Amino acid sequence: MPMESVEVLYAADRLRRVAVRTPLLTSTVIDDLAGRRVMVKAENLQCTGSFKFRGAYNALASMDQADRDAGVIGASSGNHAQALALAARLHGTQATVVIPDDAPAVKRQAVEALGARIITYDRRQVRRDALVRETAHREQLTIVSSSDHRDIIAGAGTAAWEMLEEVRDLAAILIPVGGGGLAAGTALAARHLNPRIQVIGVEPATANDTHRSLVAGRRLPISPPDTIADGLAHTVPAALPFEIMQKLLSDVVTVPERAIADAMARLWRHYRTTAEPSGAVALAGLLRIKHRLPNGPVGVILSGGNVDWGRFRGLVDRAMKGRNANATVLH
Amino acid sequence: MPMESVEVLYAADRLRRVAVRTPLLTSTVIDDLAGRRVMVKAENLQCTGSFKFRGAYNALASMDQADRDAGVIGASSGNHAQALALAARLHGTQATVVIPDDAPAVKRQAVEALGARIITYDRRQVRRDALVRETAHREQLTIVSSSDHRDIIAGAGTAAWEMLEEVRDLAAILIPVGGGGLAAGTALAARHLNPRIQVIGVEPATANDTHRSLVAGRRLPISPPDTIADGLAHTVPAALPFEIMQKLLSDVVTVPERAIADAMARLWRHYRTTAEPSGAVALAGLLRIKHRLPNGPVGVILSGGNVDWGRFRGLVDRAMKGRNANATVLH
Repeated sequence: MPMESVEVLYAADRLRRVAVRTPLLTSTVIDDLAGRRVMVKAENLQCTGSFKFRGAYNALASMDQADRDAGVIGASSGNHAQALALAARLHGTQATVVIPDDAPAVKRQAVEALGARIITYDRRQVRRDALVRETAHREQLTIVSSSDHRDIIAGAGTAAWEMLEEVRDLAAILIPVGGGGLAAGTALAARHLNPRIQVIGVEPATANDTHRSLVAGRRLPISPPDTIADGLAHTVPAALPFEIMQKLLSDVVTVPERAIADAMARLWRHYRTTAEPSGAVALAGLLRIKHRLPNGPVGVILSGGNVDWGRFRGLVDRAMKGRNANATVLH
Repeated sequence: MPMESVEVLYAADRLRRVAVRTPLLTSTVIDDLAGRRVMVKAENLQCTGSFKFRGAYNALASMDQADRDAGVIGASSGNHAQALALAARLHGTQATVVIPDDAPAVKRQAVEALGARIITYDRRQVRRDALVRETAHREQLTIVSSSDHRDIIAGAGTAAWEMLEEVRDLAAILIPVGGGGLAAGTALAARHLNPRIQVIGVEPATANDTHRSLVAGRRLPISPPDTIADGLAHTVPAALPFEIMQKLLSDVVTVPERAIADAMARLWRHYRTTAEPSGAVALAGLLRIKHRLPNGPVGVILSGGNVDWGRFRGLVDRAMKGRNANATVLH
């Protein structure tokens, strides 16, 4: 049964009073730069610091109760891990998160602090998905994918749903594309509420698996990409999101690494907010293709803000060089 | 005629659709630290990056139209200057801003970019207030004070008004105290909507003019203070705010410089947001007196976010030292 936009509406109902209805940020400096009104949906202010909480919570809320009570399992060292851990805690059940043994200790700690159990593995010796499947089978746990499930996609789509509830006449909406769950959910939500809207995915130029796959008309794997946008370093689009993106996405554009750091600096300077590299990609894409967008206001999803201070400082520092790093105007 | 809380309500009506209804930010990490629910009113996301826009816009909107059309004048190198410039532009009139000639060029540029005229003066030779008065008289301009006027106070109070509309049962609300306009407006608004609320001002320990004045029962000047919270470096509370603070403020507490930088780092890390030093003072105060607050949720006003990257980086860097600078958990 193909996914329908009403699934996003149901997800929005489940998330009401649980997820943060994140604000829309604006800046006349960026509006001038983009030649139009720009609304930034601040999912870095979502629970656990990224949009991933929407999907994880919706997946657990939609699950058969006995399955949920038996526990869930997922693989991620990043935002999906924290999202799953909190969603499980809120549902009074246990999450198990599979993390490579060379992941930063602080990421493990963040997940453990939310009450999840951690399983580590050696990336050179063990295939992650097989480990997840075997553990799930042995311990009777339900797998919660980070992108490739309709409840994850529907949950992710609630960010755009909220945005369009407030500003129906957006000419376009731009989202970062990793596994494709956010892009697919956004397309379902946005095209339902405004059939003429352009839904545009943005990828790092080095992690262009979705762009290549859409051009080819089938899911084409790429080599493991090297990008500062670690949340988007996928090698192939997930199956169900890809199907939806093929139908509903207007375009996928790519941005160089430097434009991503530049967008992080702009988000800090003009919106006073903190984006992780993956979270800044959609703004980078907007600034790249502003000349070929239809007239009218556009929405940008700032997907997450989980970045440590040292990394943030380094990337923004570099981006500020060569520009007037001291200007403080925001209006 | 003493000020009444209804003036804040009128101001809120004038600001609807003009000012940003700024979001309330939350963090379970800070909630745990404070032992209660904490709501941060993000006035750093207000137009021109600080709450000052509320007062400036309200003052111009309340003015006799002929006076407004003849032009307004104010003295400030900081947030009031930008606020006045934008408020004038939105009302289709001209703002003149009096700025010391040694103020950072970027602050001048920010004000000029908003269309205001700048008059500079030598701080060692010229008394600022006299210069403002003479210029106003000569050019038939209306003076818009940064704190000492009922329309400024009423406008500033709309931030707390919005906050209490959303969360009526706050046990306390904490605000930074400079000239006292924000504290006075907050007290008027908050005590009207919730008579039992504690309204607590926070000052840098080195800029404790209001604390000393309230203890003495009269406005006592101090020497020009040395604090990173430049927006709060006042030498004496303004007259009308002081009168209101005497009646309605529950307490004024002071915080050391180090606690201010620490609060900036916490706001970045746990709320992913950017506070200027003055903007972080109320959170610093909360963490200092958390043990002696009444039970229940508290509100904190993050008053502004106008800080350049080099300064922000330096202060947060120092605050992060000695702590785990890499933790990324936010839930």
